[in-house]
Amino acid sequence: MSNPGLLPWDIGDDDRSNLRVVMVATRNPLNLGASARAMANFGFTRLRVVSPYDVAFREARSAVGAAPLLRAAEEFGSVADAVGDCRLVVGTTSVRNRELQHSVRRLEYGARLIRRALASGPVALLFGSEKYGLSNDDLSHCHWLMRIPTVSADLSMNLGQAVALCLYELARDAKAAAARPEKVRAASAAETEQVTALLLDALQRSGYVNPRIATSTEEKVRRLVRRLNLSARDAPVLLGMLRQILWKLE
Amino acid sequence: MSNPGLLPWDIGDDDRSNLRVVMVATRNPLNLGASARAMANFGFTRLRVVSPYDVAFREARSAVGAAPLLRAAEEFGSVADAVGDCRLVVGTTSVRNRELQHSVRRLEYGARLIRRALASGPVALLFGSEKYGLSNDDLSHCHWLMRIPTVSADLSMNLGQAVALCLYELARDAKAAAARPEKVRAASAAETEQVTALLLDALQRSGYVNPRIATSTEEKVRRLVRRLNLSARDAPVLLGMLRQILWKLE
Repeated sequence: MSNPGLLPWDIGDDDRSNLRVVMVATRNPLNLGASARAMANFGFTRLRVVSPYDVAFREARSAVGAAPLLRAAEEFGSVADAVGDCRLVVGTTSVRNRELQHSVRRLEYGARLIRRALASGPVALLFGSEKYGLSNDDLSHCHWLMRIPTVSADLSMNLGQAVALCLYELARDAKAAAARPEKVRAASAAETEQVTALLLDALQRSGYVNPRIATSTEEKVRRLVRRLNLSARDAPVLLGMLRQILWKLE
Repeated sequence: MSNPGLLPWDIGDDDRSNLRVVMVATRNPLNLGASARAMANFGFTRLRVVSPYDVAFREARSAVGAAPLLRAAEEFGSVADAVGDCRLVVGTTSVRNRELQHSVRRLEYGARLIRRALASGPVALLFGSEKYGLSNDDLSHCHWLMRIPTVSADLSMNLGQAVALCLYELARDAKAAAARPEKVRAASAAETEQVTALLLDALQRSGYVNPRIATSTEEKVRRLVRRLNLSARDAPVLLGMLRQILWKLE
């Protein structure tokens, strides 16, 4: 931990199977369903539920989307049992109105620590109920806490969205942020000049060009067409349009 | 764009007000509500809706959480009108079963481009309906598209979660990923040695220490206590526990 630069930025496929998403006392089946769906979206598979509201769990299981993942969810009676096989236990929190005795790490940094731990063993990531979050008893099982850096202290996050954000940050590829966009092949100078010539022709035939300043107009049009940065795909389309217009003008 | 290193990593508070979140033909009031809530969570304020299902829009407005933001939402009859004042228009997509004629950028990179554009003017970020996404007509108003890098091609993202992820990435602080956790003040060597001494005393009195190898045991215990990395806060608590145990052992 003395050199954050050594922490891994990326997560391997094998490491994903080491994450246990632990939903504690979830009340709303929609949130359980949305959490399972986000897990499937980002390649995580191990869902554990602790004392969920019975109806919520049943309804979520019968909902469409991420059904296999929800059917495979393991149910536990206590947080201690649900995290028993994990070497790191991290709680999520909005850090409000509570005297926390834990280190609280922002999602951006906490996710890196979790990625590193996932490389060597199971990690539990705990989410509390919609209304109360994790209890002090739940929190006492955690090594440290992670918070999503929201701006408003008075509006908590939606549970399903919080789960999605944490999993996204775990799966996020930092290198992709620096990646260049895919190259678009530019039109050749000859194609671009052909577009220029046809456009000028059309402008002359339609009376746009004042003969006294025709040279200056030609240069302006040429510069304008270059600024369009035409692609190799779009240049022939534009040429076709201009030819049709010229045909009509003749 | 020639040097990605020059792109801004962070978003200013003023820039956030330049973002217009445009929800097109949203059907589910819960998704409108969740999207508005995520906007409030990450400090974005300008919500625009295009042809939402009437009931969805009315119900979302009456839902709790992010109510002021939803009340201030602007309604438009077409995408063209909704993005009219924007200098950059970005569509979101899951890129499935569609021949896209646009550049598609991953969220990590696309968000950087949007952050840069937000510094100089309004930017529209479009989200399509739950069932069909953005139509080809909607997409034709976009400069480029952005996709969330999910692993499973056959399971789309929940709309409210997709909005939350895009806004999180826009607001994300890359520097925070490298930040060190808050310092925990370590116990002094004297405090640590005091814990060691009391623990050894308790072990001797309880018969744990074999007198013949007492020195080796003492060294083992001393090393074990150092490996606990006791904090300045926890050391006195442990000392109190050990004193009580010793008192009982006497």
